[in-house]
Amino acid sequence: MLDTARRSTAEIIAALREELSERALDAFILPRFDAHQGEYVAPHDQRLAYVTGFTGSAGMAIVTAKTVALFVDGRYQVQVRNECAGPFFSHHHLFNEPPESWLAQNAQKGWQVGYDAMHLPPNWFDRFARACDKVEAQLVAQISNPVDAVWPDQPAPPMGRISAFPLQFSGRSSKDKLLDLAAALERENADFIVDTQPDNIAWLLNVRGADVAFNPMPHSFVLAGRDGKVVWFVASQKLDDSLLDSLPDHIELQPFDAFLPTLEKRISAGQRVLIDPDFSPVAVRQALEECGATVLCKPGLLTLAKAVKNSVELQGMRNCHLDDGVAWTEFHAWLSETVPARAKAGNPVSEREAEDKILELRRARPGFISESFNSISAAAGNAAMCHYATSPERNALILPENPYLLDSGGQYETGTTDATRSFSFATRPEGYDRAYTAVFKAFHALMTLRFPKGTQGHHIDAICRRPLWDLGLDYDHGTGHGVGHQLSVHEQPQRIGKPYNPVDLKPGMVLSIEPGYYEAENFGIRIENLVEIVEEEDGFLAFRNLTLAPIETRMLLIEDLTELERQWINSYHAEVHKKLCPHLEPATQRWLKEATADI
Amino acid sequence: MLDTARRSTAEIIAALREELSERALDAFILPRFDAHQGEYVAPHDQRLAYVTGFTGSAGMAIVTAKTVALFVDGRYQVQVRNECAGPFFSHHHLFNEPPESWLAQNAQKGWQVGYDAMHLPPNWFDRFARACDKVEAQLVAQISNPVDAVWPDQPAPPMGRISAFPLQFSGRSSKDKLLDLAAALERENADFIVDTQPDNIAWLLNVRGADVAFNPMPHSFVLAGRDGKVVWFVASQKLDDSLLDSLPDHIELQPFDAFLPTLEKRISAGQRVLIDPDFSPVAVRQALEECGATVLCKPGLLTLAKAVKNSVELQGMRNCHLDDGVAWTEFHAWLSETVPARAKAGNPVSEREAEDKILELRRARPGFISESFNSISAAAGNAAMCHYATSPERNALILPENPYLLDSGGQYETGTTDATRSFSFATRPEGYDRAYTAVFKAFHALMTLRFPKGTQGHHIDAICRRPLWDLGLDYDHGTGHGVGHQLSVHEQPQRIGKPYNPVDLKPGMVLSIEPGYYEAENFGIRIENLVEIVEEEDGFLAFRNLTLAPIETRMLLIEDLTELERQWINSYHAEVHKKLCPHLEPATQRWLKEATADI
Repeated sequence: MLDTARRSTAEIIAALREELSERALDAFILPRFDAHQGEYVAPHDQRLAYVTGFTGSAGMAIVTAKTVALFVDGRYQVQVRNECAGPFFSHHHLFNEPPESWLAQNAQKGWQVGYDAMHLPPNWFDRFARACDKVEAQLVAQISNPVDAVWPDQPAPPMGRISAFPLQFSGRSSKDKLLDLAAALERENADFIVDTQPDNIAWLLNVRGADVAFNPMPHSFVLAGRDGKVVWFVASQKLDDSLLDSLPDHIELQPFDAFLPTLEKRISAGQRVLIDPDFSPVAVRQALEECGATVLCKPGLLTLAKAVKNSVELQGMRNCHLDDGVAWTEFHAWLSETVPARAKAGNPVSEREAEDKILELRRARPGFISESFNSISAAAGNAAMCHYATSPERNALILPENPYLLDSGGQYETGTTDATRSFSFATRPEGYDRAYTAVFKAFHALMTLRFPKGTQGHHIDAICRRPLWDLGLDYDHGTGHGVGHQLSVHEQPQRIGKPYNPVDLKPGMVLSIEPGYYEAENFGIRIENLVEIVEEEDGFLAFRNLTLAPIETRMLLIEDLTELERQWINSYHAEVHKKLCPHLEPATQRWLKEATADI
Repeated sequence: MLDTARRSTAEIIAALREELSERALDAFILPRFDAHQGEYVAPHDQRLAYVTGFTGSAGMAIVTAKTVALFVDGRYQVQVRNECAGPFFSHHHLFNEPPESWLAQNAQKGWQVGYDAMHLPPNWFDRFARACDKVEAQLVAQISNPVDAVWPDQPAPPMGRISAFPLQFSGRSSKDKLLDLAAALERENADFIVDTQPDNIAWLLNVRGADVAFNPMPHSFVLAGRDGKVVWFVASQKLDDSLLDSLPDHIELQPFDAFLPTLEKRISAGQRVLIDPDFSPVAVRQALEECGATVLCKPGLLTLAKAVKNSVELQGMRNCHLDDGVAWTEFHAWLSETVPARAKAGNPVSEREAEDKILELRRARPGFISESFNSISAAAGNAAMCHYATSPERNALILPENPYLLDSGGQYETGTTDATRSFSFATRPEGYDRAYTAVFKAFHALMTLRFPKGTQGHHIDAICRRPLWDLGLDYDHGTGHGVGHQLSVHEQPQRIGKPYNPVDLKPGMVLSIEPGYYEAENFGIRIENLVEIVEEEDGFLAFRNLTLAPIETRMLLIEDLTELERQWINSYHAEVHKKLCPHLEPATQRWLKEATADI
C-alpha cells in the first residue's frame, strides 16, 4: 500500500534518528494509532509502517539511537519477523513484554522521551509516564510529529466524501441519539463529552464517510453537551451537498483544526467533561486540564450505546447476512469445482484470484458497498499467519492437496458481515482433521452457550478453547470481537478473549465467534460466524446466529463428535439451505444441497 | 460465640453513635477485618458482629447517625437479613453496591469519616479516599477503635500457644525460606518486606499457633530484610519453651506492640519496602511513608510462595486426605443407616448430632488436630444458606424425606482438608435430581479440565457453571478457593471465580472445586473436592484429585450423563474404594463397595 521504494528502511530510520537528535530526544514512542485510535489508519497516518515496514493492524515501536523496539501481539509474531527482519529491530510481545516495561528497563536517568499527544490515549500515556518516573526520564510532547518531518512523500490527509445515513437503516435520528446522550451526561453528572472515534461519531450523527479503507466513516471530532447539541469538527468540504443542505440545527460545524483551541474556548474551569481514557488522544485530556475542567474518565459511553443495536439495525444485519450467505455459497461452489479442475489443467487458482472472486460475487448482491476488511485468502502454510495478506508478489496457489482458508466480509447498506471458512479439496496434512474437529467443537461450544446477565467476554473465552486444550492445542488470538452496523468490522467495547474486559454482554450486541488452530508453515484453521446476543424467556442470554454459509464437514472426525454437536451442524446446515436456496441458481442449489447434507 | 445478651443491638448502636459524636465523626467504617485481614477473627476483634449481630465471614458496615449500612456478598444475603433485621440497618451487596459507592452517595460535604488504620488495607483505604474526595468529605484515622470504647465486656486479645512446625512436615527450613525471600527482595529491588498475614508468617517461620479458631497460626507481624534475617513482632509469652530455646539466630523477637514504632526506627528514608496492598493495614503504609521509605505495593510475594506447595507439603496433603476419607466414609455409612432408622424410631438425627459425629470420627484418625472450619451441617432448606451454621437454638432434624448437606474439613499434622457432599435418603423435592445432576456435571467439567500455563481462575470459572447455565441455573459464590497446608482453609492468592484474579494457576497449588445450586427455603446442593495442580507431559496443567469420599449417585439422572461423565464417576469411585478399603472395618467396607458401585 505504501510506496517506500524510494528510501530504504535504513535510510528512513537514520533520518528519523537525526530528527530526534535535533529535537534532543533520546527516544520516540511511535504507535500505530492516529488521532482516532482505530484499527484502520489512512495512508497519511501510516507512520509506523513507513518507518519500520510493519503493516499489521496493531503495534508500537520505540525508536532510540541504538534500536527500534517493536511490539506486536500474538497474531503478528510471524509477520513482524518477515517484514522487519533487519538488524535495526528488536522484537517483543505487546502484552507479555509491553513497551512501557521495555522503556523502564532501557531508558536511562534524564532521558527525553518524545511522543505525539494526538496519537497516544491517556491510559497508554499514563503507563509510559509511570515507567519514565521509575527511571527518572521525561516524557516530552512533540508539537509536530517527527516522522512527518522525515517523510517527504507523505500522502495527504484523507478527504473522503461524507453523506447522510438514512433513518430507514439507522432506526433512530441523530436528534434522538443526542437527547439520549444528554440524558446519559445528566446521569453521569457531566457537562460535556468529547469523542474522537470515527465510528462513534458516524453512528451518533447518522453519517457515513470514506476516510479509511473498509470502514465507511469520516475522520472528525465532536464535543456534545447536556443541551442535546453537538459541535462537529470536520472539514466541511467533505460533506456532500445534500447533507450540508439538510444539516439539522443541533449540529454545529467547526473546522477540523479548530478542535483543541475550541475545547479550550468553550469549556470553563470547573465544568465536568467525559472522555474515554482508552480511545481518545491524551492531548484532549491535557487541553481540558489546561482550561481547569474536571476530566471524567469513563470508557465508552457512546461506544456502548452504539454497540447495543436497535431493532432496525439488527434486522439490517440479518438481511445483509442473507446476501452475504449467497455470495459465500456461490464462492464455495465455485471453489470446490474450480480448484481441482484448474489444478488438473495445469493452471491452478491463486489466492488473489479467490479473494477477487468472492468480491465479484458480493458486488453482484444488492446493497453491497465494499469489503469490510482486507480478505485473508491463505493457502496451505500461509493460513498459519492469522492476518496474512496477499500481494502481487505474494500470491500462492490453491492446490487440491492443501487446505485453504478464507476470512472475508462485506459492508452492505444494511450492515456489516465477517466470516471465515476452512476448505479442503483432496488430502490434508497429518493432524489437520483432528485439529479441525477440535476447532469445530470449540465453535459449537460457544455458539450454543447460554449465560446469565452480567457475564463478560473474558468469562466465556475458555469455554471455546476447552476442546482444543483437551488435545494440548490453543490459539494466540481473541475468540470474538464486536462488529459494527455498516461501521467497523472490529467494534468496541465487547469482545471475547483472555484479557479482562469489564463490559457486560448485552442483548443487541453483535460479536464474532472464531476459534482457530495454527501450525506454523503447515496449516491454519478457523471457523467464524457472527452472532447477535438475545435474551431468552428465562432471562438468560444466548447467541443467535447471523452468518449463513456451509461449514465443510469432510474434515470432521464424526466419531469424535457428541450427538449434540452432530445435531447442531445438521440443523445449522438445514437453516442455511432453507434460507439461501431461493436465492441461488439451480446448479448452486444442487451443490448446496450436497454441502449441507446431514452427517 | 459472642455474649451480647447483656446489651441489645439498639443499645450498642446508640452507644457507638454517641462515641462517634464525641469524636466529631459523621460516619465510621467498620470492616470485619482485624489487623491481619483474614477470614477468621478472634472474639476480641469481632467488632462487626458485636455492633450489628452479623456473624458471616466477610462484610463491612458504615455507621452513621441515621443508619447502619451493611455490605455482605452473595453467600450471606439471606443470613444477614435474618441476623440484622432491625430498622437500624440498610442492606447492600458488597460487590454490586460497594461501600465506597454508598459513601459517595450518602456522605455530605465536610463529613468526617472515621476508620481504624490497622483494620483497613491500603486498597480499601484508597477506594474510600477517592469516594470522600468526590464529595469533599475527610477520612480521619482513629488512634483507638471507637467500638472498643463502647464494648465493656470485650474479650481479651488471644494468647494462643506457639510451637515449632517440624521440618518433616514443612519440607523446608525457615532459614532457607528466608534466603529465598531475600533473593526475591533482590529481584524486586526492595530492601525489606513487611508482612502481617498470620498464615504467611506461620509458613515462613515454620511455626503454628492458636489465636483464631480452626486456623493453627499466631497473630504476629514480620519485617524481613535482604540479609535473610527477620524481626518477628509477637508476644514472647506465647512461644512454648522448646521453640524459645531453639529459636534460630535469624529470627529476632520484638514485642507485638513495638511493630509500628520499630518500622519507623529501623527503616530509613529512601529504603524500598514491599507491602501487600490488599492484605496489610494501611497503618503500615502510613508509617513507612512517615519515615520517607519508598513503598512498593506488590500483592502476595509471600502469599504466592506459600501457595505453591513443595513436594513434602503435597505428600502431606495426600496423606491427610486418606485419613479424612476414612472419616467421611465412616460418617457416610453411619448417616445412611442412622437417618432412616432413627426417624422410624421417632428420634431423628439432628444437624448438630451429624456434625459432632464426623468430628468424633476425625478425632479417631492419627494426626488429627481440629476442624478446619465450622462444619456446615444443613438439612432441607437450611442448605440453601451457603454458610449456614447450627446453634443450640437452630438445630433442624435430618429427615429421610429431605436432602442433607455437609461441608466439613479437618486440620491434620500433615495438611488440611475440606469437602462437601450432598445426601439423600428417600424422597427429594421437585427439581432436586435435575439440579444435582447439573452440579455433578459442573464438578466433573472442572475436575477434568486441562489448561495452558498462564490460565487464571477467572478464565475457567464459567467452564464449571455451564452445565447449570444450560438449565437457566447458577450459584452466587465462587467456584474454588486456595487451601493452606495445615493453615487457612481459605488461602490466597489463587481462586476460581467470576471476579478478576490476576494470579496464574501453578503446579503445586491446592484448590477446592465446589459448584452448587440453591433454592431458598427448599434445598441446597454442593459437591466439593480439593485438587492439586499438576503439570502434564505436554506442558499443559491439570487438576489432580485429593479428596477421597463417595459421591452419592442415586440422585444422578444417568440418562443425562455423557459417557465421559459416567466413566469418570466410576473411575473416581474405584479409586476411592481401592485407597480407603484397607483402612475400614468390614461393615464399612461392605457399605463402601455398594456406595462406589459402577453406574
